[in-house]
Amino acid sequence: MSDLRVGVVGAGLMGADHVARLQGRIAGATVSAVIDPDTQRAEMAAQAAPGSTVFSGIAAAIESGSMDAVLIATPGQFHLEDLFTALDAELPVLCEKPLTPDPESALKVVDAEVAGGRKLIQVGFMRRFDPGYMELREIIATQPYGDLLALRCAHRNPSVPEGYTGEMLINDSVVHEFDVVRYLTDSPIAAVDVKHLKRNTNNYPHLNEPILAFLETESGVIADVEMNVSVKFGYQVKTEAVFESAIVEIGRTSGTTTWSDGKYSGSEHVTFKTRFQEAFDNELRRWVNAAKNGTIDGPSAWDGYLVAAACQAGVQALNTGQRVEVDYVPQPDFYK
Amino acid sequence: MSDLRVGVVGAGLMGADHVARLQGRIAGATVSAVIDPDTQRAEMAAQAAPGSTVFSGIAAAIESGSMDAVLIATPGQFHLEDLFTALDAELPVLCEKPLTPDPESALKVVDAEVAGGRKLIQVGFMRRFDPGYMELREIIATQPYGDLLALRCAHRNPSVPEGYTGEMLINDSVVHEFDVVRYLTDSPIAAVDVKHLKRNTNNYPHLNEPILAFLETESGVIADVEMNVSVKFGYQVKTEAVFESAIVEIGRTSGTTTWSDGKYSGSEHVTFKTRFQEAFDNELRRWVNAAKNGTIDGPSAWDGYLVAAACQAGVQALNTGQRVEVDYVPQPDFYK
Amino acid sequence: MSDLRVGVVGAGLMGADHVARLQGRIAGATVSAVIDPDTQRAEMAAQAAPGSTVFSGIAAAIESGSMDAVLIATPGQFHLEDLFTALDAELPVLCEKPLTPDPESALKVVDAEVAGGRKLIQVGFMRRFDPGYMELREIIATQPYGDLLALRCAHRNPSVPEGYTGEMLINDSVVHEFDVVRYLTDSPIAAVDVKHLKRNTNNYPHLNEPILAFLETESGVIADVEMNVSVKFGYQVKTEAVFESAIVEIGRTSGTTTWSDGKYSGSEHVTFKTRFQEAFDNELRRWVNAAKNGTIDGPSAWDGYLVAAACQAGVQALNTGQRVEVDYVPQPDFYK
Amino acid sequence: MSDLRVGVVGAGLMGADHVARLQGRIAGATVSAVIDPDTQRAEMAAQAAPGSTVFSGIAAAIESGSMDAVLIATPGQFHLEDLFTALDAELPVLCEKPLTPDPESALKVVDAEVAGGRKLIQVGFMRRFDPGYMELREIIATQPYGDLLALRCAHRNPSVPEGYTGEMLINDSVVHEFDVVRYLTDSPIAAVDVKHLKRNTNNYPHLNEPILAFLETESGVIADVEMNVSVKFGYQVKTEAVFESAIVEIGRTSGTTTWSDGKYSGSEHVTFKTRFQEAFDNELRRWVNAAKNGTIDGPSAWDGYLVAAACQAGVQALNTGQRVEVDYVPQPDFYK
Repeated sequence: MSDLRVGVVGAGLMGADHVARLQGRIAGATVSAVIDPDTQRAEMAAQAAPGSTVFSGIAAAIESGSMDAVLIATPGQFHLEDLFTALDAELPVLCEKPLTPDPESALKVVDAEVAGGRKLIQVGFMRRFDPGYMELREIIATQPYGDLLALRCAHRNPSVPEGYTGEMLINDSVVHEFDVVRYLTDSPIAAVDVKHLKRNTNNYPHLNEPILAFLETESGVIADVEMNVSVKFGYQVKTEAVFESAIVEIGRTSGTTTWSDGKYSGSEHVTFKTRFQEAFDNELRRWVNAAKNGTIDGPSAWDGYLVAAACQAGVQALNTGQRVEVDYVPQPDFYK
Repeated sequence: MSDLRVGVVGAGLMGADHVARLQGRIAGATVSAVIDPDTQRAEMAAQAAPGSTVFSGIAAAIESGSMDAVLIATPGQFHLEDLFTALDAELPVLCEKPLTPDPESALKVVDAEVAGGRKLIQVGFMRRFDPGYMELREIIATQPYGDLLALRCAHRNPSVPEGYTGEMLINDSVVHEFDVVRYLTDSPIAAVDVKHLKRNTNNYPHLNEPILAFLETESGVIADVEMNVSVKFGYQVKTEAVFESAIVEIGRTSGTTTWSDGKYSGSEHVTFKTRFQEAFDNELRRWVNAAKNGTIDGPSAWDGYLVAAACQAGVQALNTGQRVEVDYVPQPDFYK
Repeated sequence: MSDLRVGVVGAGLMGADHVARLQGRIAGATVSAVIDPDTQRAEMAAQAAPGSTVFSGIAAAIESGSMDAVLIATPGQFHLEDLFTALDAELPVLCEKPLTPDPESALKVVDAEVAGGRKLIQVGFMRRFDPGYMELREIIATQPYGDLLALRCAHRNPSVPEGYTGEMLINDSVVHEFDVVRYLTDSPIAAVDVKHLKRNTNNYPHLNEPILAFLETESGVIADVEMNVSVKFGYQVKTEAVFESAIVEIGRTSGTTTWSDGKYSGSEHVTFKTRFQEAFDNELRRWVNAAKNGTIDGPSAWDGYLVAAACQAGVQALNTGQRVEVDYVPQPDFYK
Repeated sequence: MSDLRVGVVGAGLMGADHVARLQGRIAGATVSAVIDPDTQRAEMAAQAAPGSTVFSGIAAAIESGSMDAVLIATPGQFHLEDLFTALDAELPVLCEKPLTPDPESALKVVDAEVAGGRKLIQVGFMRRFDPGYMELREIIATQPYGDLLALRCAHRNPSVPEGYTGEMLINDSVVHEFDVVRYLTDSPIAAVDVKHLKRNTNNYPHLNEPILAFLETESGVIADVEMNVSVKFGYQVKTEAVFESAIVEIGRTSGTTTWSDGKYSGSEHVTFKTRFQEAFDNELRRWVNAAKNGTIDGPSAWDGYLVAAACQAGVQALNTGQRVEVDYVPQPDFYK
């Protein structure tokens, strides 16, 4: 099957990242178009996608017939028009959050999509694809530890740019929890409350943070979310789920931990496929890139020989119980 | 740039896994041929690669002109002939370990490659692409903690098939340490010694394991490797590196840990790009697959609307200091 | 110096625990009196303190001249009178929390102590003596990570007895955070707010919990405290301290963890004195108890001989590089 | 029951530590005598034990009738004579390791004790009293994970004094593993083998370390012990126990971890008694010391009042759902 030809709208930080990711890490996709009114910026992003074309607007790109699908990565206030254009052209869309900046305009998109009769618009709430959130959602749904009572969340950024405003604490940051808390609990957010924590005076004078937001779902679960955008030490997004008889924490670099029955526990690998998943992916990715240039990028035939010689000595050591020295022929210059 | 057309030789467990991985997870590659004398098995593996052709031997596949590169995943005793054929055709190769079953035949491959004058053969020592081993190699090379003195390794399998023999403890399992210890230390294995640990009587009568293998590098580093193939609890490959002034451990599910200066420590994320790398990859992978069928696979425009409404309430709560309830329009049937 | 003769008032669960602890784990103290109107219960607790006398009231115990200090472990509503009696007798007191059940009566104790001119009453807020809280207080005071902004606390009990009421969530449980948050921040609690989390329907019908309590200190720090008394999985009291540039978490079984500068870290031992502190204490405690009966309780002279023989072989192995077998004389029946 | 009167022989680092521990941390014991030919050193150590007497030799101390038991903390070459003297006096002994420097002299002690017919001599292998080793021994004995196959041990010191010799790697350091491996497995050490790891060139020219020692028990368990005395980063003694179906690791600061059934796990507290064991001990220890001087050392009646006021506000907040400010009377100067 031929690759999906994707047009990426917006060649800023996020858009350029998507161009590189689609091209370098996602099988079955090719970035065919990079679209930005700032075509110089588009050209730069397009360097990661050889063969792609640069356009200054989505309409021209559609007209060229070079796109099967659209990824929108512009700021939220520019989404509405491009979404309508993509819907008209019946192209599947992945739209970075927010869908649009307010519920009224978002409803217009909803109405247009319903009128078209096809689900074409996906919103970029990527946490739903994070292994920790997926695992937690499964635990909440299957109830091995009873009902979920509360989610204790932290979203900590090292810093934000100076243009970041107080309202962006909600619209750009807590926004993720609005979606994922509903996704985890399968229940809409019914009410919100916000408290200021002690102000971090190192941050910009216009920005009073961190805050603590309380999300209540219709089902009665409370999520208290620490939203902290200048904690410097690192980027941390984690959630402690309080069940009737257990605690499950996701988002630590150490993985998901469960406290139940007087123990804490977590998963260990049971097969090389998960233990070395990332290694196999990296190996093949680098080999494919090298092979396109007619060569390799990894351990060579010489490495294979050296190991064969060591294995021969190893088997002898196993069978005799004696220490065995390994002999090698001299290394050809070719491999130096 | 067009995709690399890869022919996979061998449609057993490992070969089928490579077909699926190349097709589903690696950008820029297409599996164009699946090659196995058991063409029924080849057909099954080829189902993961629509458009690929099945061949009973590598020569026919080369003749067909449908391959740019070859991935060899047959048992080691069948590698030699296919490697020569691929070299003759000047195709880049990724050959699963072992290169060949003994150093003499491995040398023949080396000689042939040298004669051809192009590096075309890569051996599948995938640990070199594992983030932990890559990080440890960097630490050994840059010496923040002084010289490396020892590597204390464990390779623990839950179980092995009944055909697994005592010599395979070396040839199939310790083989990885022979390569990676040299890779980590940049020094060849100079000698090997093997001790039996107390025998696990639950294993097959013909298999006396676990064993402890000692690898000495020319540079004087000792690696003691516990090779354990029936420990049941899980699959664990880990290494504790003993430096002059620190310990670095890789391979735990919790990530790399360093003990130095009276502390243990490990890395925390500092950007969303690493924290949500896997989430972004999953998101795009699923969206690309859905978009090929003209639809989406993730949060919808309706999800986008719900979040926009919650954000509006959140900003009001932030600005007023009051609890705010969220209003939604009724959900269209279209999204149920 | 002779032992402090302590009278323990109240022979319930807590009182009996204090009798056993003072007698078995605290150097320099002897329980000389156990005081409870239920003298049968007092007799039982007194069995852990041979030589102690049982009294039905504190006055009689004081009159007998057998106490140098008093530990009060009765329920809070009975504290006031006994505190006055102890103050009159000028005896140092350790009074389990609460001092008294309400601020008015507590003030009477304060006034009486001030009038007496000597500090004689200590309240049993034992968290101040927990290594984690002590370490955190030091970090807050010395500010290596800037100002403290928030404390995110959890206090999780596996279960509570049926007599436990909703107000006891505050008076018996959050009470510890009221003290320790002030202790950590050196600033009084200025205001309190409480939210109910989703109700745990497994708990008693009269008990609506868990709750989330917000403590604001005068200095502006917010502590949000999850108070959860039926979480079953275990007993967990932990606090995540949010600083301007770091997070410090105390109370996990894994010890204190700090997130700063893109890393997480914790303390490693640097001397055998801390690594084996508990082992040395246990060793001496058991030996002292055995020696009082004219014998020992631990590795014997025979164990000493066996190790001496193994060491001799070990030194020979070190010096020769050969495997050395150890010879032992037969074990005397005396040691079997 | 009156305190055990202990005489401590040897007032060096270890002896002085024992004097302070017995006096300050062990209930039921009093250091009555400090014995060292260097009486000035003995006087210094004796300062931690008010009321104790200093002697230049054990015989004089015995003659004075002031000791019920003896703790010997001199270097090993001085043990033999003092052990005989203590046996003659029928005093229980705790003798720091080694019992004596060689198996021949150790046998003489054994013979003398057997002749006396009473177990009076305990050897200071304190690891047997470490919670981790005790837990592991129980697991080995009860076999929830099948038979024990191997112990992978590390003993890492930050540094050793210049007088430390190569043979002390065995006699002073591996000595602990000789005892504890046998204690864990209930099987004597049958053979020993030693390998040198790559030499740490930062250590003294006369000291070739680290080493790897192999201990074989009669039951067939192999312990490989990394003995490392200049690793700088900290003091670490840990053991990974390899069972037929699980791994159990003890000695990490994070506590004991078990890998079994596709999970890692560890114990969580289930009661405040273990969670705050150290806090309660510290609290009482400090209070007892203060009470001997007629005062307290911890939270005061004023702290009790402040908490009572906060609790009153907290209950009001709980009952009303409103934020409640806390009122306090002014703090008396007495408490400032």
